[in-house]
Amino acid sequence: MERRTFLRAGLGGVAAAGLTAPLASGLLLADRGSTRWRIAAEPIRLSSNENPLGLSDAAREAVIASLGEANRYPGPYRQAVIDALAAKHEVRPEQIVLGAGSTEILQMAVQARGPNATVIVADPTFEDVPRYAERIGIRVEKVPLRADYSHDLERMREVAARSSGPVLVYICNPNNPTGTVTPSSEIDAWIEEAPESIQFVVDEAYYEYAADPRYRSAQRWVYTKPNVLVVRTFSKIYAMAGMRLGYAVAHSGTAEHLARWAAANNANTLALIAARASLGDREFERKSLEVNRRGREILTKCLDELGLEHLPSHTNFVMHRINGDLPTYNRRMEEHGILVGRPFPPMVTHSRVSIGLPEEMERFAETLRMFRKRGWV
Amino acid sequence: MERRTFLRAGLGGVAAAGLTAPLASGLLLADRGSTRWRIAAEPIRLSSNENPLGLSDAAREAVIASLGEANRYPGPYRQAVIDALAAKHEVRPEQIVLGAGSTEILQMAVQARGPNATVIVADPTFEDVPRYAERIGIRVEKVPLRADYSHDLERMREVAARSSGPVLVYICNPNNPTGTVTPSSEIDAWIEEAPESIQFVVDEAYYEYAADPRYRSAQRWVYTKPNVLVVRTFSKIYAMAGMRLGYAVAHSGTAEHLARWAAANNANTLALIAARASLGDREFERKSLEVNRRGREILTKCLDELGLEHLPSHTNFVMHRINGDLPTYNRRMEEHGILVGRPFPPMVTHSRVSIGLPEEMERFAETLRMFRKRGWV
Repeated sequence: MERRTFLRAGLGGVAAAGLTAPLASGLLLADRGSTRWRIAAEPIRLSSNENPLGLSDAAREAVIASLGEANRYPGPYRQAVIDALAAKHEVRPEQIVLGAGSTEILQMAVQARGPNATVIVADPTFEDVPRYAERIGIRVEKVPLRADYSHDLERMREVAARSSGPVLVYICNPNNPTGTVTPSSEIDAWIEEAPESIQFVVDEAYYEYAADPRYRSAQRWVYTKPNVLVVRTFSKIYAMAGMRLGYAVAHSGTAEHLARWAAANNANTLALIAARASLGDREFERKSLEVNRRGREILTKCLDELGLEHLPSHTNFVMHRINGDLPTYNRRMEEHGILVGRPFPPMVTHSRVSIGLPEEMERFAETLRMFRKRGWV
Repeated sequence: MERRTFLRAGLGGVAAAGLTAPLASGLLLADRGSTRWRIAAEPIRLSSNENPLGLSDAAREAVIASLGEANRYPGPYRQAVIDALAAKHEVRPEQIVLGAGSTEILQMAVQARGPNATVIVADPTFEDVPRYAERIGIRVEKVPLRADYSHDLERMREVAARSSGPVLVYICNPNNPTGTVTPSSEIDAWIEEAPESIQFVVDEAYYEYAADPRYRSAQRWVYTKPNVLVVRTFSKIYAMAGMRLGYAVAHSGTAEHLARWAAANNANTLALIAARASLGDREFERKSLEVNRRGREILTKCLDELGLEHLPSHTNFVMHRINGDLPTYNRRMEEHGILVGRPFPPMVTHSRVSIGLPEEMERFAETLRMFRKRGWV
């Protein structure tokens, strides 16, 4: 940690936000099994669906300019972000709830349903919701994804129908770890008919990356349906995963109820300042999508070339086959300076790789080709 | 917000961490009721017990050097801080639980007791614990402080004894908003005899400021008593209130149970980096205490001079009489560019003023003297 920090410090602030930062701040390393020296970012992190660009210039400058406020509680900074989010989503400020990352919103949603709830999730999906429920004794029902890796809403409806007590239906759309979308029209049809005892939590962490015409936000429902909660994050498109800021958009009564489970001052001062500077930065949003598109192209070209099946990605990661044992694959990747996604059972024949910078994806592709030569994938 | 940010930015980063920053970054303002121009920090924040120094130089430099990591989830940075805290407190790493501020720890402690718990708190004390309990329907029993503003442990014991179900006893020591200490020997005596159904949460947010010989940390108990939880924060002595980092020290089983109510990735990357740089920075700790001592001297001298009774402070704030209506007093202070503490009923004859920089306390004292001349205090 100290070493990387030191190296990045040496570069000066702004450079590290640019495309070439991880390479520029990398070390000259001997590649294992080679005598050629190369620049590497030691290791390349393709493991957590982080936006490799780093903070936008505007966010970075705002944070540096505001470091003198890091000793001040975030209170005065909250409202500006809430107001900007309300304007963005065309809702009233009281319909926005902030969280220390969208994961805190997910936790609040689970807790707000109470100990007798049933939580219905896809399998596999983002683990935080079932984890929050299970560890405090709330029942979780896992419904396998359909063959096309969309949510099996039909079966989820059946499970909901036979559940007594409050129900929480978690729909991660696009879904993590598969990157696939569930058609919005199907979700809408269920929401339209569902009783209010079913709380829908639609996690749209990857919203901005989705380009499928069958996909749209569920936020249209928050005006009329108190049982719909839309969850968004600054972690992905705005590259703020380390700063912890996410939010819910909901009916105002739902938002008020949800906020009872929020920690006080949950959004930190610097995150709020970075968020305010990031919101509406179309140039940075465009750059994030463009870098993601370029990285995904390099990646899928390589996967196609090697005949490794991959799921259609509407996110900043790709789920693909690996032809072999997943823990062994992950360990070998790590030995070659690349961190890829954790296992997502039951999909143990697949690896989730996050899309880094184009240079990083070239390095990943090169490594994967070498793995093929060695018969490892 | 933008205006202050801009002004501070103009100063460059490091200067703003020094003693004179708020004045240097202030504006030339005409004082109301005067033709004299003065430098003011617009407004001076003496309202939230923040450490006016701002981040330590080491923390500031580490944060700037690590801004390129703000897009990375905090996972890799957690262990270094946990290990450092374990070493500091002479416990095992699994006895440390991190929170997004110590308030998240307080929330976790309340939630971990379950819906049938009784939460026993002093009156007045820090409001977050009763607030977390009440808003999710957990019963709260408030026990007035004794005449010397220490916790009335005898009456709290009586309330605990007649409570059925799990009990949480919250002891804020030194206490916010009074600044007073409860003798540790009395707390120890209760802990020693108490059944395990009573969970003690000892909030030591102001630990470093306490100089009373009757005061010591309750952490000695975490080795043997699973029902004792000690809560600390980086907000005060390390001036990190805006960054949100606090923690619990507890028996390992208790820590593991508590963590089930933690939000994932609750401590953010920059806070962890600042914490690692701050921990053990004796020079900054000393400076924080010294600035606090100087500010308190200016403040108490003025209060004594005006005959305004004040409570003995073992914190970075002072509770004092105001001779008049509290909302009117707060409004007038605000009109004169100074924010003081919120009302803490039932002590509505008192104001809590946080200790800012010596220059800020001179300004506060001058304002208070002017209030006296006008017959307002």
